[in-house]
Amino acid sequence: MDRSSEKIYKEACNVLTGGISRNTVYRKPYPNYVNYASGCRINDIDGVERIDFANNMAALIHGHAYPPIVDAVIEQLKIGTAYTMASETEVTFARHLCERIDGIERIRFVNSGTEAVMTMIKASRAYTGKPKIAKTEGAYHGTYDFAEVSQFPDPSTWGDIDKPNSVPLAYGTPKGVLDDVIIFPFNDIERTIAILDQHADEIACVLLDPVPHRVGLVPGSNEFIEAIYNWTRKNNGLMVFDEVVTLRVSYGGAQDKYPVKPDLTALGKIIGGGFPVGALGGREDVMKVLDPREPKLLFPHSGTFSANPITMTAGYVAMRDFDKEAVEKLNALANKAISQVEEAVKIADVPVSITGAGSMFRIHLRPTPPKTYREAHQTPETKSVINDLLDYLYYKEKMLLINTLACMFSTAITQNEVDSLSEGLLRAFKEMKPKIEKLQK
Amino acid sequence: MDRSSEKIYKEACNVLTGGISRNTVYRKPYPNYVNYASGCRINDIDGVERIDFANNMAALIHGHAYPPIVDAVIEQLKIGTAYTMASETEVTFARHLCERIDGIERIRFVNSGTEAVMTMIKASRAYTGKPKIAKTEGAYHGTYDFAEVSQFPDPSTWGDIDKPNSVPLAYGTPKGVLDDVIIFPFNDIERTIAILDQHADEIACVLLDPVPHRVGLVPGSNEFIEAIYNWTRKNNGLMVFDEVVTLRVSYGGAQDKYPVKPDLTALGKIIGGGFPVGALGGREDVMKVLDPREPKLLFPHSGTFSANPITMTAGYVAMRDFDKEAVEKLNALANKAISQVEEAVKIADVPVSITGAGSMFRIHLRPTPPKTYREAHQTPETKSVINDLLDYLYYKEKMLLINTLACMFSTAITQNEVDSLSEGLLRAFKEMKPKIEKLQK
Repeated sequence: MDRSSEKIYKEACNVLTGGISRNTVYRKPYPNYVNYASGCRINDIDGVERIDFANNMAALIHGHAYPPIVDAVIEQLKIGTAYTMASETEVTFARHLCERIDGIERIRFVNSGTEAVMTMIKASRAYTGKPKIAKTEGAYHGTYDFAEVSQFPDPSTWGDIDKPNSVPLAYGTPKGVLDDVIIFPFNDIERTIAILDQHADEIACVLLDPVPHRVGLVPGSNEFIEAIYNWTRKNNGLMVFDEVVTLRVSYGGAQDKYPVKPDLTALGKIIGGGFPVGALGGREDVMKVLDPREPKLLFPHSGTFSANPITMTAGYVAMRDFDKEAVEKLNALANKAISQVEEAVKIADVPVSITGAGSMFRIHLRPTPPKTYREAHQTPETKSVINDLLDYLYYKEKMLLINTLACMFSTAITQNEVDSLSEGLLRAFKEMKPKIEKLQK
Repeated sequence: MDRSSEKIYKEACNVLTGGISRNTVYRKPYPNYVNYASGCRINDIDGVERIDFANNMAALIHGHAYPPIVDAVIEQLKIGTAYTMASETEVTFARHLCERIDGIERIRFVNSGTEAVMTMIKASRAYTGKPKIAKTEGAYHGTYDFAEVSQFPDPSTWGDIDKPNSVPLAYGTPKGVLDDVIIFPFNDIERTIAILDQHADEIACVLLDPVPHRVGLVPGSNEFIEAIYNWTRKNNGLMVFDEVVTLRVSYGGAQDKYPVKPDLTALGKIIGGGFPVGALGGREDVMKVLDPREPKLLFPHSGTFSANPITMTAGYVAMRDFDKEAVEKLNALANKAISQVEEAVKIADVPVSITGAGSMFRIHLRPTPPKTYREAHQTPETKSVINDLLDYLYYKEKMLLINTLACMFSTAITQNEVDSLSEGLLRAFKEMKPKIEKLQK
């Protein structure tokens, strides 16, 4: 066959905007198309095999084509993928997640992380009757416009740190949306509380990713999370967590390590076992806004593919097998990887630092880890060196990372792949040392 | 085994809000759980087999466990369900849809109809730079809050027909959302144009479902669609179609029958082949707002599960096999069903009417078909008789309809099932005749 990625991409440009359906997979001069994938290896149709440290943007906790998921899904496939009726697997999976995650007493499934965060924000408004939300500057929470305000502000737009601007991501975002989103700096208790206080009566929820990737992949401090929790108690608002990415960090999610629990939690990614998924869980009394049995249903909500038995089956198997032991084992391997990469940084003697939590970590081209979004924000020069590094790793070292220089491990990764990663990075650091050093000038 | 739906539902209530994950599947005293489904038959774990006329809310064009989809998905399952890379199947499927649907030159896939409509509205704002949208009173467009304004107004809230109120669906909907959504009455050219004219400079798009289910499942007239089209040309706005449900109506969607084409079209339901899906397609120049290659990207957008190869594979097989001949055959069968139901109405001598298009139709408990949302709106008395009718059909006649008394056919349905439907309805009409007649008093 004369298929090549270059050729397919040329055809793709005639039917898909930009030739792709997700900006994430776009790559210059063209993306490579997958031939097949298994475990932590992904093979493109041009004949190249790569180690996959991205795992579909952190969504595949067991890597590709995990046999127990494949087998269970085939069984379900034969009896239907979606009904206008209930299926038992949604109850089994719901029970697993309620038992597993402290902050979740009741749950509802949706189809993506974007839908989960949107449903969480709407539920918060319905419960409190208040219109506004507050969110972290720079944090990513999917594509619902309220959730994406100030997802990517830059020095020309972000404004005074004491009162960060609400910066639109998409052109044409209505002013009403911007007015209803309050922005605060992560892990900065004093400034955040002062900002929240200015809108105390209007805030339905404070939305937090406990380890926000784009902010620098640094965990929220105990003190910060507790300060937000206490503020929401005092002001009749909710504290809600976006754990779409961070659930993997600990058996019960990143919320495990805090003494206080969120009122609502949004889930996605790994709980789908490789299939489209999202979920909203939380306190029973708050979740009641969604209950169709209530005499006055505050938040009517449905979804054609929500809780479809394929996603429920795959998700349940994925999470069942990602048990406490598996979580600890994977976190230990990621820690090992971090120390090996730190060793590579030392040997190459480059100004590079690492942040992370659980089975995820991110490499920064700066000598000390960033503490805030504004510190983590990359200049065009930094972004350009990161792209060179990603290309080096992708084309020369044959490994796929997330394009922030982050790794999200799957249980299919072993010490062998960790060695390949640290050795590949060592070569990359040495090769790019002058460029990396220049960024600090 | 001692499993029963009653028992499972009791357990479900401890983990899922209301015991369900979609309000659609809720049923008093409890929903039945599916054991297995095949073609147009669906079997619950309590041992009852039903004919499925709902097809997961119109999403399954070939019914359950359609063998060509099962086979193709199993092949894909073995090589992975989702990658941080592109896959050829998204290009194949995109090409099919672009060739099939006149209004679509470029396409992008998402995960649900809700996401498709949200992406369409955001793309309209990004292209025009305008903040507002206009939508049909009573039309359903998923759960994005801008799209769900006035989805279900009632006489106490809907206001003057010359200037319908923007009525929130969920409690706590921000005022800014309501202010940015303009409501007009479907198929009413004079009033609609007068309403649009009042916001001529601010309207990014006029959002239309060409055969809006909740408005009465009556097609938009040529004159109405043309009037909207011409108004948007004159006022630098877009005309955008929600064809999530209506794509099935004709080979190229409901837009086939109009001389003018929408600038953007949202898709979902049947294009997923039974898996979670949505898509936004449209004019090349408008879709460019999403193109990551543009020097200034107006609408950055991605999605973890967007265009995943399982959905692409299943969707492509479903649509490939729903070719022109299959569409015509299915529409003919639905027309046959409508005449048989009309015959049953005549025999039972009940004040009942039917509306529809293509392979979908809806039964109304009134002697003449409704022409507007306000006519189609049901009093609590009507709703109660409809529920009795649905229960009669579900428990006695063993058939599953959509809870508006609508049928969305799949290609698995044959003349046998049509006969069962009309005979079942005849018995139901006879049984409920006094109740149905009383509604007209």
